Amino acid sequence: VNGVLMAAEMAEQPEVLARLAARAGCDAASVRGVIPGALAGTVFLARGSSDNAAVFGRYLAELHGGRPAGLAAPSLYTRYEARVDWRGYLVVALSQSGATPEIVTTCAAMRSAGAVVIGITNEPGSPLAGSSDLLLCTEAGPELAVPATKTVTAQLTVLLSVTAALGGEVIPGAELGAGELPAAVAAVLADAAPVAELARRWAGIDRLVVAGRGLAYAAALETALKIKETTGILAEGFSVADLLHGPIAAVYAGCPVLLIDAGGPAASDTGRLSVLLSGRPADVTAMPLPAGSEPSAVVTAVVRGQQLAYALALARGMDPDAPAHLRKVTATS
Amino acid sequence: VNGVLMAAEMAEQPEVLARLAARAGCDAASVRGVIPGALAGTVFLARGSSDNAAVFGRYLAELHGGRPAGLAAPSLYTRYEARVDWRGYLVVALSQSGATPEIVTTCAAMRSAGAVVIGITNEPGSPLAGSSDLLLCTEAGPELAVPATKTVTAQLTVLLSVTAALGGEVIPGAELGAGELPAAVAAVLADAAPVAELARRWAGIDRLVVAGRGLAYAAALETALKIKETTGILAEGFSVADLLHGPIAAVYAGCPVLLIDAGGPAASDTGRLSVLLSGRPADVTAMPLPAGSEPSAVVTAVVRGQQLAYALALARGMDPDAPAHLRKVTATS
Repeated sequence: VNGVLMAAEMAEQPEVLARLAARAGCDAASVRGVIPGALAGTVFLARGSSDNAAVFGRYLAELHGGRPAGLAAPSLYTRYEARVDWRGYLVVALSQSGATPEIVTTCAAMRSAGAVVIGITNEPGSPLAGSSDLLLCTEAGPELAVPATKTVTAQLTVLLSVTAALGGEVIPGAELGAGELPAAVAAVLADAAPVAELARRWAGIDRLVVAGRGLAYAAALETALKIKETTGILAEGFSVADLLHGPIAAVYAGCPVLLIDAGGPAASDTGRLSVLLSGRPADVTAMPLPAGSEPSAVVTAVVRGQQLAYALALARGMDPDAPAHLRKVTATS
Repeated sequence: VNGVLMAAEMAEQPEVLARLAARAGCDAASVRGVIPGALAGTVFLARGSSDNAAVFGRYLAELHGGRPAGLAAPSLYTRYEARVDWRGYLVVALSQSGATPEIVTTCAAMRSAGAVVIGITNEPGSPLAGSSDLLLCTEAGPELAVPATKTVTAQLTVLLSVTAALGGEVIPGAELGAGELPAAVAAVLADAAPVAELARRWAGIDRLVVAGRGLAYAAALETALKIKETTGILAEGFSVADLLHGPIAAVYAGCPVLLIDAGGPAASDTGRLSVLLSGRPADVTAMPLPAGSEPSAVVTAVVRGQQLAYALALARGMDPDAPAHLRKVTATS
């Protein structure tokens, strides 16, 4: 049956996130034990859906850690043989399989150049473990569908603890925001009606803009990736601010838009974009989300995005578990 | 006449770049005068096409400067009021108008938190000047067409000097690679035939993937943006490695692909993607480029992308000078 694996793995998310939320205080303490004394910066290293989780981590790390954060460019290490001094840096490497060659190679290069490396993976025995000072496992269980779902929300949950620990204060588990996730995610999973309607309406589209700002930008990127992967629709994720710098022309030309508003201080920008587009001939839909704190709303938006990707694939007669020509582990180097 | 401004501004590029190449050694010396003593990292701050130039700078800065580099997330400063210690950082802020509110605001916040700021703008009297320790002007003259062309290649040329200066050695102007640009760009501009053929073939498409790796990634992003802006086609720019992690499904579903190979150590990845796709039903075209060093090929690829965006807009009966509903300066905050 089409999509049976993806559906089952999506359904496991409340349980997976509850397990990680219970571990949050402990993870934060482990992270505090390895942070470089004079932190120069935090860099996230990942590809694919892990890289979208990395965007979430990058925002939270700069916000909570008080030092600049960023995303790595692996080709500088796997192709250009860059010689870079990584002393003072915390590198957070994310790989569901822990086996993507370029992530493992880049991780090892950064660590031997002085970085402290935290690896986040679903495979404790993977090569990433050997290149990390601290390994945090997502404990999501085997993931068999090609589109990553429970491993992504598990990464987001672990990143809440990792970035909270950068704040310099001892943070009890309950204050990390992870505690509200299981119920919020369960609520989204239990209510597939809004997505079913959208999937019917968009069954025939071949392009889509997905936009959010601030923390919601990560959810926009991940929703766009999940839709591309399962349906072949060219869905591009944007920051609302980037969308206004030119790409909005694609919307005026008829490309449908999915807006993600996770609340928080960037919500007003998403609201203004909505007002701007309401005066134009544009097909704009706000992603339906339950109320919650901003970080929690990002995770529920990612789950809503999985649900939409899944429903769109079925509406187009495709199997979301195994999109044509795609493999589970992408071995880029 | 449709596109008369954009065509004239594109044609000025060899002259603009020659002026900047002549100034390259002097710019590098000015940059060397402001680099923080113990450099913690370099961060590029921009939006829109300036942000694509920033990607080029981010790769070169990490490669030449020997310390990590990255891209800023302005909303952390304009919306989240992040309190971040920027001591030890060099921030390179790029804005053609020098007036984008979020760039100026973020720049001021980072500088007051300890960053040394280099501003790169086409408007010496703009607000960005007041927030910079060193201002480098692109001297491209007034740009009236909405899609930025000569100001973008001017930024790329200035970034060659800025990032070379991070290398720690005194570099004479001739070794910056900027010297070969005017002739290479003139050669591309003089030969519009390959692009005319492509524009005829793609006149009716509504989605496009543009991919490159390493330094060419910046050209892929900028070409995609220029095409979106002038034609409304949803053109998404990818790193070749990111494309393989899921988005390739859009290609298998029929989305055409433009591959940018700028030579250099990442060219083999683009070649391998080409071989992979040749065995599938995919519409793949390699961007035609003259031979040259890798950084120079990135600049010529950006010019070829402008040429394609321009030709596609005309082929679709649109005015590339003034895409519907877009304004020259996008005032995001």
